[in-house]
Amino acid sequence: MDDGEIMKRFGQQIRRLRLERGLSQEAFAAKCGLHRTYIGPIERGEKNITLATANKLAQALGTKLSTIFLGLEDDN
Amino acid sequence: MDDGEIMKRFGQQIRRLRLERGLSQEAFAAKCGLHRTYIGPIERGEKNITLATANKLAQALGTKLSTIFLGLEDDN
Repeated sequence: MDDGEIMKRFGQQIRRLRLERGLSQEAFAAKCGLHRTYIGPIERGEKNITLATANKLAQALGTKLSTIFLGLEDDN
Repeated sequence: MDDGEIMKRFGQQIRRLRLERGLSQEAFAAKCGLHRTYIGPIERGEKNITLATANKLAQALGTKLSTIFLGLEDDN
């Protein structure tokens, strides 16, 4: 899977999990300690985020990075 | 797990997998398409790498990001 595909699928997983939890982008950003305008580009796979940011997103969603990656890698 | 701990454990997993495959840092860097001086800091958890770089490392090791994260998150 190429880098752009990883970013796109990661963003899709984040969006799916955020919506499952009934969080707006604004509320989710606040939970993550990130700026609200950052969430949209992440969910669209436009941001090549760092491991530290990915970790903040997973924690704010109450999940693990392994779970997020399993979800996106299984979906081949 | 805080961000620094994620970076440290991710680096340890990369180092373990690289050594299992009998690759020097130089040979591994070449496989990843990264500069050889970048590998040491990644393995020591000193670099907050991006998802795209993490993907390159996993592919050069013939593994998946979910497998790497399962390994480091299980080890609590």
